[in-house]
Amino acid sequence: MKIGIIGLGLIGGSLGLDFKAVGGHTVIGISRRPETCSRAIARGAVDEASTVLNTLTDTDIIFICTPIAQIQPTLDQLAPHLSPQTIVTDVGSVKAPIVDAAESVWPNFVGSHPMAGTTESGIEAAQSHLFRNRPYVITPTSNTLSQSIETLENLVRSLQALPYQCTPADHDRAVAWISHTPVMVSASLIAACTAEPNPAVLELAQKLASSGFRDTSRVGGGNPELGVMMAQYNQAALMRSLIAYRTHLDQIIDLIEHQNWAELNALLTRNQQVRPKYL
Amino acid sequence: MKIGIIGLGLIGGSLGLDFKAVGGHTVIGISRRPETCSRAIARGAVDEASTVLNTLTDTDIIFICTPIAQIQPTLDQLAPHLSPQTIVTDVGSVKAPIVDAAESVWPNFVGSHPMAGTTESGIEAAQSHLFRNRPYVITPTSNTLSQSIETLENLVRSLQALPYQCTPADHDRAVAWISHTPVMVSASLIAACTAEPNPAVLELAQKLASSGFRDTSRVGGGNPELGVMMAQYNQAALMRSLIAYRTHLDQIIDLIEHQNWAELNALLTRNQQVRPKYL
Repeated sequence: MKIGIIGLGLIGGSLGLDFKAVGGHTVIGISRRPETCSRAIARGAVDEASTVLNTLTDTDIIFICTPIAQIQPTLDQLAPHLSPQTIVTDVGSVKAPIVDAAESVWPNFVGSHPMAGTTESGIEAAQSHLFRNRPYVITPTSNTLSQSIETLENLVRSLQALPYQCTPADHDRAVAWISHTPVMVSASLIAACTAEPNPAVLELAQKLASSGFRDTSRVGGGNPELGVMMAQYNQAALMRSLIAYRTHLDQIIDLIEHQNWAELNALLTRNQQVRPKYL
Repeated sequence: MKIGIIGLGLIGGSLGLDFKAVGGHTVIGISRRPETCSRAIARGAVDEASTVLNTLTDTDIIFICTPIAQIQPTLDQLAPHLSPQTIVTDVGSVKAPIVDAAESVWPNFVGSHPMAGTTESGIEAAQSHLFRNRPYVITPTSNTLSQSIETLENLVRSLQALPYQCTPADHDRAVAWISHTPVMVSASLIAACTAEPNPAVLELAQKLASSGFRDTSRVGGGNPELGVMMAQYNQAALMRSLIAYRTHLDQIIDLIEHQNWAELNALLTRNQQVRPKYL
């Protein structure tokens, strides 16, 4: 199969390494930076690489692995170069707005989201087996060609990733819960604690903080651009989760305020029982 | 020094192991269960052990290492057996209510909180060096004898723990921020997500959840008794932090609702910069 990869960073580069290792494919990479093209070839992530999109003309499937904001502009530029049977997919972490816009430009578009990564980025961070045993969500709509879904799903299986299918909206609501809401919940904790008005208490908190604070504050102290991007592109689903979250927070505050220890114990017991379902 | 330890669980047992290893002390343990007394002797955590408090009559210092609810009843029973120069300390994770009550029964009381532990409990979980390089907070009041603080602090240093001194109230406010508020923030996340009304979204969330959700939900899915105990004994400081937390959460929700990405980016950037101070 002739596979195009646009954006040779952590995800694009890792896809290339795996497709090359699987064998039987020709992998053509695209990056805006010539140095990245050279490094991708040197690392064995692509067979050839270019800074221009017209080298993808006769590819079977193209993975757009750019940052979210570049997916639509990239597809707009790419579309005139393609023949209708070329499948285009993306790896963006939000699906409904991307899929909505992409489908109208390229009917043979299949949205997807490989849920794998590291804290690093760039072609040097690309690694083999990044997707192995990780979820790879495919988000077809009623317009998506079933043959295109099947082709993508087979490629995903060849990466030893775990393909899931759902609607773009369900994907966005699920990731709002498991990824984007935790960031805002965690960010609120750091912000609130750091605004402690008593300097002695703040200093003590910073000295005494250990694993509980460290874990709960981790994602709220991460990359700011990533956090803003989540909020920007998944605003509706994130707001829906945050409003629900606030209601549950208010319930817990109410239980503590009214010393309803039996109900608080019941709630924490349900949490302890249900949490393993997320692990 | 003649050291008494009441409650031979993880903390009491580990204190005993370390004091015996330091040398020069006689360690007398107290447990309600005779089997625990035997095991503590067999493990080398105490020189002698008993189920009755009158063996502690001529000790220099006594560590009450019972669960929080038993500290005050234990001190009430213990006081008639002691001579005034005996220092009594505790290891409870909340300080103001304990210290307030204890001082009136035993003027030579010094509140403290060794911030070390494991997820296990009981004499079998006791281990050497549990306190090494961990904070050990001592919470004197204006009534506390300075010589007693010094004696305790020297013992703490001999455990290679890091002694900190602060008021009971400042301790409680600091641990509300770094330990008790994270539990409620995290518990609200699990409860809210699990109440997701769309079963397909909930199932997907449970399948796709990874490190972000895992870390942010960890302390909210822990021991329910411990969570209730925190709320019960540190109610005032916890409420103070939770109300402040809700204000900051509301600010973030407001920024997202009004698409104020510049301000959200500024907030997340401050978080990223400040979080290392807690690590």
